[in-house]
Amino acid sequence: MKTKIICIGKLKEDYLKAGIAEYNKRLGRKIELVELPDDKIPEHASDKEVEAVKNSEGQKILEQLTKDDKVIALAPKGKLLTSEELSARVNDYQTYGATSLVYLIGGSLGLSAEVLARSDLQLSFGRLTMPHQLMRLVLMEQIYRIEMINRGSVYHK
Amino acid sequence: MKTKIICIGKLKEDYLKAGIAEYNKRLGRKIELVELPDDKIPEHASDKEVEAVKNSEGQKILEQLTKDDKVIALAPKGKLLTSEELSARVNDYQTYGATSLVYLIGGSLGLSAEVLARSDLQLSFGRLTMPHQLMRLVLMEQIYRIEMINRGSVYHK
Repeated sequence: MKTKIICIGKLKEDYLKAGIAEYNKRLGRKIELVELPDDKIPEHASDKEVEAVKNSEGQKILEQLTKDDKVIALAPKGKLLTSEELSARVNDYQTYGATSLVYLIGGSLGLSAEVLARSDLQLSFGRLTMPHQLMRLVLMEQIYRIEMINRGSVYHK
Repeated sequence: MKTKIICIGKLKEDYLKAGIAEYNKRLGRKIELVELPDDKIPEHASDKEVEAVKNSEGQKILEQLTKDDKVIALAPKGKLLTSEELSARVNDYQTYGATSLVYLIGGSLGLSAEVLARSDLQLSFGRLTMPHQLMRLVLMEQIYRIEMINRGSVYHK
């Protein structure tokens, strides 16, 4: 099953790039990373302007998805799975014939309602806010971890 | 209020060191990082051996704490606070006269029951497992974030 991460904005920090490269190396393959341009957020944005940015960024994400993709959206209010539960879920997708798994990370305002509705799973990494750029590294480690769980490796105890 | 992180094991990855250095720089001060030696975990460790390692590492942590320290232990099964709730909690400690705040990150087996019992707060960054080394970077960002919240900065929206 192909794995892809779609996210908003260009990754700037070198240490995050280095960490992501490290997990690609350990996986022995490159997880495709699609970086979509972020929209400018107006200063003191109104609720309506916030929604407009989320919807515009959401449209760009939706255009990247095909109907066969299994989609896991990272969402603070999503399901609080354990790594074992997540790996079982990903395993199920594969067992039932999915060929493409896409993880979505929104921009600094988060994902639009339409994107969340399209997702097969809304996954939460806890209630604490984390920068979406750091989230990419945390997600890469988790992708590596669930592959190790499914391979029965000792990496995940 | 002085802030300190006590953790088990030496940080090895350069990209994590670079990320932590970045947040110290942004904070304009160095968060003291106390790295205690980890115990060797026997191969195919029994439950009893796992407990022994956790208790031994726990003793080293407890020896570092003074009775005046406010202690926040990172624990997967702890409280799922939001960043705003965490910043309010830290603010309260300061308001009621605490002079030292200590965050604890256990080794790869986690913190002992005794350490958890000594803690003022067991804080969870979600149910997904994360390497304790990566957790240090995630925690540093959160320490920076709650300081920005308490200063009323735009960093945290």
